[in-house]
Amino acid sequence: MALLVLKFGGTSVADIDRIRNVASHVQREADAGHACAVVVSAMAGATNQLVSLVEQAWGFKERQLNGGREFSAQYDCREYDAVVSSGEQVTSGLLALVLQSLGIAARSWQGWQIPVYTDDAHRAARITGLDVEGLKGRMLDGEVAVVAGFQGIAPGNRISTLGRGGSDTSAVALAAALQADRCDIYTDVDGVYTTDPRVVPKAHRLDRISYEEMLEMASQGAKVLQTRSVELAMQRGVRVLVRSSFEPPDLGGKATDSALEELGTLVCHEDEIVEQNVVSGIAYARDEAKVTLLKIADKPGVAAQVFVPLAEANINVDMIVQNVSEDGFTDLTFTVQSADLDQALEVLRNARDRIGYLDLRGSTDIAKVSAIGVGMRSHAGVAAAMFNALAEKGINIEAISTSEIKISVLIDAAYAELAVRTLHSLFGLDRN
Amino acid sequence: MALLVLKFGGTSVADIDRIRNVASHVQREADAGHACAVVVSAMAGATNQLVSLVEQAWGFKERQLNGGREFSAQYDCREYDAVVSSGEQVTSGLLALVLQSLGIAARSWQGWQIPVYTDDAHRAARITGLDVEGLKGRMLDGEVAVVAGFQGIAPGNRISTLGRGGSDTSAVALAAALQADRCDIYTDVDGVYTTDPRVVPKAHRLDRISYEEMLEMASQGAKVLQTRSVELAMQRGVRVLVRSSFEPPDLGGKATDSALEELGTLVCHEDEIVEQNVVSGIAYARDEAKVTLLKIADKPGVAAQVFVPLAEANINVDMIVQNVSEDGFTDLTFTVQSADLDQALEVLRNARDRIGYLDLRGSTDIAKVSAIGVGMRSHAGVAAAMFNALAEKGINIEAISTSEIKISVLIDAAYAELAVRTLHSLFGLDRN
Repeated sequence: MALLVLKFGGTSVADIDRIRNVASHVQREADAGHACAVVVSAMAGATNQLVSLVEQAWGFKERQLNGGREFSAQYDCREYDAVVSSGEQVTSGLLALVLQSLGIAARSWQGWQIPVYTDDAHRAARITGLDVEGLKGRMLDGEVAVVAGFQGIAPGNRISTLGRGGSDTSAVALAAALQADRCDIYTDVDGVYTTDPRVVPKAHRLDRISYEEMLEMASQGAKVLQTRSVELAMQRGVRVLVRSSFEPPDLGGKATDSALEELGTLVCHEDEIVEQNVVSGIAYARDEAKVTLLKIADKPGVAAQVFVPLAEANINVDMIVQNVSEDGFTDLTFTVQSADLDQALEVLRNARDRIGYLDLRGSTDIAKVSAIGVGMRSHAGVAAAMFNALAEKGINIEAISTSEIKISVLIDAAYAELAVRTLHSLFGLDRN
Repeated sequence: MALLVLKFGGTSVADIDRIRNVASHVQREADAGHACAVVVSAMAGATNQLVSLVEQAWGFKERQLNGGREFSAQYDCREYDAVVSSGEQVTSGLLALVLQSLGIAARSWQGWQIPVYTDDAHRAARITGLDVEGLKGRMLDGEVAVVAGFQGIAPGNRISTLGRGGSDTSAVALAAALQADRCDIYTDVDGVYTTDPRVVPKAHRLDRISYEEMLEMASQGAKVLQTRSVELAMQRGVRVLVRSSFEPPDLGGKATDSALEELGTLVCHEDEIVEQNVVSGIAYARDEAKVTLLKIADKPGVAAQVFVPLAEANINVDMIVQNVSEDGFTDLTFTVQSADLDQALEVLRNARDRIGYLDLRGSTDIAKVSAIGVGMRSHAGVAAAMFNALAEKGINIEAISTSEIKISVLIDAAYAELAVRTLHSLFGLDRN
C-alpha cells in the first residue's frame, strides 16, 4: 500500500462527467489498495465568475491595459477569499458524492477543517503548516480524503486563498505533511515537454525532470505546474508525477517506479535521473514587458532610486540590463510582468525628480526564451552556441540573464517561435 | 441606538444591483446609529443550481411525482451541505464588499466562524446554540456583521444547513442570541396580508399579527416566513418585522414603534395588538395530497398500524378523518405533503398484510383552506358560519381540522379560490 495525493485542476473537474472521470482515477488507485487524498480545484470558469462578482461588488473600474486589468483601489482580500474559495468547496463535495455513489468511502475537507494554516496575506497566502492527523487517520482507515485546494485558514479564523494555481501548492504541501509516496498532478497534458508542442511539433515528453529544471521551466513560462509548488516539492523532497487526467493509463494502480515514465513526467531529485541532457527544455514567455529609462546618471545609488519604489509597489523586476556609460549617463532596461507595466511606469514617473532621467519607455512587444538544463553546470560553451544560433537566424538579443542551469534571452516577440524551434533543434531535443 | 438584525432572501440579493439595494437599507440603519447584523440567503437560483449539481453527482434518478422529486437512494447529506452552503458564503462576502465600497465597516461571517452550532441532522439541521460574543463585540464597535444564513456547524466540525428557507431561522436565532431590538425580514412583499392578494384583490396588509396566528398562517400555506423561524421568534420573544426590500421606506432608520406599521407587518405577542379581529387571515395550500384506506377493521391498534410506519419513513400526516363504522369496518382518510404521496402509498402497500384494507387511493386534487385568528378563542360560532358560507356556494367539505385559533377544511382543488374569497368576505377582511 502506498499513500498517494492526487490533484485535479479546473478543466479536469469542469462538469459532472469529468468529475466522474476523476473518480475513476481515484477508484483505480483505491482498488490497488492505496490510501488516497484528492486535491481539487474549482470547476473551470467558476473562479473567474466569482472574481468577476467580487469586482462588480467593489465597483471595479476596468482599465484596458495590455489586455490586463487593474483595480481602482484595493478591496478587502479577506472577503475576496471568502467568495472565491467557495468554488473549491463545491467541487470537493461533488467529488465526494460521486465517489460515494461508486461505493467508495469518501468525505470532503475544507481548508479550515483539516486545518491548512496560512499567513494573513489574503488572496496570495502562504501555507505555514498543516495538521493532517485527523485526515490521515481516516485515510488509513480506507476513506478517500477529498480536499478543497487553493484554500486555508488565516490567523483570526478567516478563510484564505493561495493565489491562482494554488491547488498545486495545496497538493504538494499535503503530500509533504502526509509523507506521501507520491503526488500525482493530473493535467490536460500528459507530462512535461521539452517545449510547447504547439510551437515545436518535434517536442517530446520528458520521462523525468529535476526539481531545479522544473522550477526554471515553470518560472520561465511553462504553465504545467505552479512555481511555488515546485519550490515546495524540492524543499520537502516530494516526488511529483505530472500526468494526464484524460488519457486512460495502461498500468493502473500497479505502476512501479520504473513504469512511472509510461504515465507522465516524474519531477524528482536530479540524482534520480540517470541520463542527463545538457539542455532539458526550452521555455518561452510573452507576458513580460520592457521598461527603458533613457539617460540616467551613472553614479552609485541610482539603481536603488529606481528599484526600491518598484519593490515597494510589489512589482517584480526580472531581467536588468545597463548599457555602457557615456559622459556619466547611461540607459537602464529591465522587464516586469505585462500586467504590472502601467503601474511600474506610474511609479517611475512619480519618482522622476529623485531618479533624474531624460525619457521613460514601456513596451510589451518582447518575448523571453530560455534554455534550461542541469547539465549546463558541467558543460561550457552552451551560451556561446545559443547566441550563435540565434544570430545566424538574424534574431537580435535585447537582454540576457543566466543562472547555473538556465540562459534566458529577451528578443523581439515576432521571433519567439523561430527562436524556440532553433534552440530546440540546436540542443538535440527534436524527436520525430 | 438599537441592535437590529436585517434578513434578505434570495430575490433581494439576486445580482449585484440588488445587493447594492440591500446595502442602501443597511446604510440607512447604520446612519441612524444602529448596530446591524445582516443575514443573507444565496443569490436567487444559486441554491437550485447547487442542488442540481449534487443530484447529478449522486446519479439522481428523476421520477415525476406530482411535480415533486424523489431520490432513488439517500446521498450523504453532509456533502450536500458542503456544496449547497457555498451559495450563502458567496453572498455574504459580496455584501461585505459592497458595504465597504460605501465606506461602511463590514465583514462576512460563515456559520462555522460565529459559530452557529446545530445538531447533526444535515440538510435540515436545528440550531442548538450560538456563540455571538465575538460578533456582537465587533457590531458594537460599529462593524456591520454580514452573516451567511441557512448554515451552521454540526458536531464533528462539518458544515450543516437548516433546510429550505432556513435563513429566516438563522436571522431569528441570531436576533435572540444578540438580544436584538428587532429582526427585520425583508421580502418581495411589503408585509403579511389577510390572504394571497393574487387570489383576493381586496386583501390588505396587516399592521400586526400575533406569533400564534403567523405560525398558523405559515404552516397553512402563507409563504412569507418559514414556520420554524416563527416558532423560534415566539419562544424567544423576538419582534419580527416583515417588510419590503424593494419599496423605499418613508421613515428611515428613525422609525419608532408606532411607525413600524407603516413599514410592514410586525409579528409580535398578541398583547401588543390592540384591536383584534376574530379572524385575521385566510390561508390556503395546494401542496397536500389525500390518502384513503377503504374498508379497514375498526378495532384498537389499527391506527397505529397505519401511522407508525409512516412516521418511521419521516412522512408528516396532517388531517385525519375516520368515517363511522359499518359492520366492524371503516374508511380512513388523511393528508400528507404531495411530495411524500408516492412514498406514503409504497409504505402502506408494504404494510397491507399487517393493516388489512380493501383498497388504497391517493389523490392530489385537493386544497386546504384555513381561517386563522386568535379572536376565535373568545368567539363562538366561527366554524358554523364558515361551514354555512361554503355550503351556500356548493363547496363540499371533505375533512375538517381545528385548533384553538384555526379552522381548516379540505375541499376539491377546483373550489380553492372561491372558498378563499368567500371566507375573506365572510370574516370582514375585504378592503377596497
